[in-house]
Amino acid sequence: MKCLYMSFNIQIIPMKVNGHPYHTIWLHPEIQFGLQVIDQRKLPFEFAVVDLMTVRDAFEAIRNMTVRGAPLIGVTGAYGVCLGLLHATENNWSAALKESARLLKSARPTAVNLGILIDEICALLVGCSSKEMAIELAYREAARLKEREISWSEAIGENGLKLIEVISRKKQGQPVNILTHCNAGWLASIDWGTATAPIYKAFHKKIPVHVWVDETRPRNQGARLTAWELAQEGVPHTVISDNTGGHLMQHGMVDLCLVGSDRTTLFGDVANKIGTYLKALAAADNNVPFYVALPSTSIDFTMKDGLAEIPIEQRSGAEVTHIEGIAGDGSIKEIRIINESSPVANYGFDVTPARLVTGLITERGICAASEEGISLLFPEKR
Amino acid sequence: MKCLYMSFNIQIIPMKVNGHPYHTIWLHPEIQFGLQVIDQRKLPFEFAVVDLMTVRDAFEAIRNMTVRGAPLIGVTGAYGVCLGLLHATENNWSAALKESARLLKSARPTAVNLGILIDEICALLVGCSSKEMAIELAYREAARLKEREISWSEAIGENGLKLIEVISRKKQGQPVNILTHCNAGWLASIDWGTATAPIYKAFHKKIPVHVWVDETRPRNQGARLTAWELAQEGVPHTVISDNTGGHLMQHGMVDLCLVGSDRTTLFGDVANKIGTYLKALAAADNNVPFYVALPSTSIDFTMKDGLAEIPIEQRSGAEVTHIEGIAGDGSIKEIRIINESSPVANYGFDVTPARLVTGLITERGICAASEEGISLLFPEKR
Repeated sequence: MKCLYMSFNIQIIPMKVNGHPYHTIWLHPEIQFGLQVIDQRKLPFEFAVVDLMTVRDAFEAIRNMTVRGAPLIGVTGAYGVCLGLLHATENNWSAALKESARLLKSARPTAVNLGILIDEICALLVGCSSKEMAIELAYREAARLKEREISWSEAIGENGLKLIEVISRKKQGQPVNILTHCNAGWLASIDWGTATAPIYKAFHKKIPVHVWVDETRPRNQGARLTAWELAQEGVPHTVISDNTGGHLMQHGMVDLCLVGSDRTTLFGDVANKIGTYLKALAAADNNVPFYVALPSTSIDFTMKDGLAEIPIEQRSGAEVTHIEGIAGDGSIKEIRIINESSPVANYGFDVTPARLVTGLITERGICAASEEGISLLFPEKR
Repeated sequence: MKCLYMSFNIQIIPMKVNGHPYHTIWLHPEIQFGLQVIDQRKLPFEFAVVDLMTVRDAFEAIRNMTVRGAPLIGVTGAYGVCLGLLHATENNWSAALKESARLLKSARPTAVNLGILIDEICALLVGCSSKEMAIELAYREAARLKEREISWSEAIGENGLKLIEVISRKKQGQPVNILTHCNAGWLASIDWGTATAPIYKAFHKKIPVHVWVDETRPRNQGARLTAWELAQEGVPHTVISDNTGGHLMQHGMVDLCLVGSDRTTLFGDVANKIGTYLKALAAADNNVPFYVALPSTSIDFTMKDGLAEIPIEQRSGAEVTHIEGIAGDGSIKEIRIINESSPVANYGFDVTPARLVTGLITERGICAASEEGISLLFPEKR
């Protein structure tokens, strides 16, 4: 995988990423059929763009979290299928398609969007009579899925905005304090984000908001990505350790919890970044509304009991024992933060039972986290 | 404050600290009336001993967390009073005593032991007729308070051991999985610890135990101190991010939660390291017993409603934005882990309401976290 590093300090060029509007994934401007993505492992310390030229590149980018976030890995998976077709021969493209789909789906187990989008694109290609036709159709479909993801994020933003407006009216202009966990921002999606979409919509409408950003150990996607996103957009926010949210809720300092989802079951159980469940418990204990923002591609209509059925990814212990940041001399350094003889465990996600979820914010509207609520919004999936 | 650094890698000399048994505070072996403490800010990367020669040294050591943990800062406060007397003149020792007490009590606001032990020693000195007599009595009393803390820790260990034995019998020899938060180990105390005392007692009795160690952001006392303590003693353990405990409890991987306390009210509300409340919520939601181990000097018999009454310390944002560890070249490095333009907040403690606490393990036995339970064990405090 070739990397085009643009090493600069984001403090020196604030809003430059927004000054030149970016998506998280796009067609390569110079190499036909190639792709480019933002390397999210480097943010906020470095803004780097990575080329994806083969299905193996796409697989690695998803697996090693160059790209992450359920909606984005779904779209990357769809484009990964396109890349898999590219390098097939005229005779074996159908087998290559299947093999690409299998490989890409294995990159990460918890998010359901990946499998859903890959299945969508594969289903469309079954009837193709030639490799060339399949390639053309695949890229067209991947682009459509990407555009759909953007329009759904925007719709989630508009639907969630109504919740923030209601709270803002009650608070008579005092800032609405929203707690979020991990990064369900535009970096996790293509544009707007899921959990952040209503926040950006409110901010653009001049509704006073303030975001409590959970650091989100061990990969610190909150401290690294969400804080950076919000800082780039100028949205007021404060980074806190993951331990802090309960205390804030006990003291009336959180009006709304808003998180994303990697997989939501038909019964409304929500798999999201590890630690989400603890915040949902605190929200329930303090009567703070707890909403989950997600495109319908994050709903697994085949699963009911999230705790029993959703596979939870276990990741490398190095994510717990080591951490990356900026040293005093401005260089990026990785340090070990635990003594070498202590073992660690690293579960990537947990499941928040539906009973703790106030509602799901989807592209079609807000519904209860229940079979009835979900089925009313998505009757065609019954 | 003079530092005697013994720079060595703990991996090279495992158990050396135990090979040469240590307390966390002791009289200086060479300088009369001086004190020495382990510099807990350096562990586990460096084992350093710090001299405390003046009341200002003791104040700084408590404030900057060279020493930390409610029982240990109480004893350090008592010895701090001794140091304050040392440098008084014959005429002003009584005023110096008061000023030392005031200064030391202001070092940290949340733990109650500090004030209680300082008041105990001051009350004893009121009747002294000379500075010399006061100094002699003060050091004798500080030593007694230190010994009392050790014997109470050991009694907490014996009382808590019974809980572990019951669970072990039910599990028929399978390891008892205990989750702990922060460091309520011997480093937080003088010896044995509070939450760790029952664990060490069980381990010494060959009862199979395994400890889930919460990393405990932002200062990482779990990952840095508890993991090091347990590794030194050979107790099986696994370090996890603070986000993980809920998931483990949902899946039956925790048999018992065991934490310390900085201040417990007469009604049984428990102030402890930020994030404790979230674990107590998860324990209640999954029927996991949640016990708090504490010497009675951590009980504030004057307070009832912990949420309303216990002052919660807010600490420097640098503890959230920066972190220390070992770089690839073996040197200790501090790095910044959040972009410079994002604000942070750092609350040191939270309050776990009594309704979430299964019981309090004290030096006198185990009681319910309620006025009735506490009063039955400590009738003289009514």
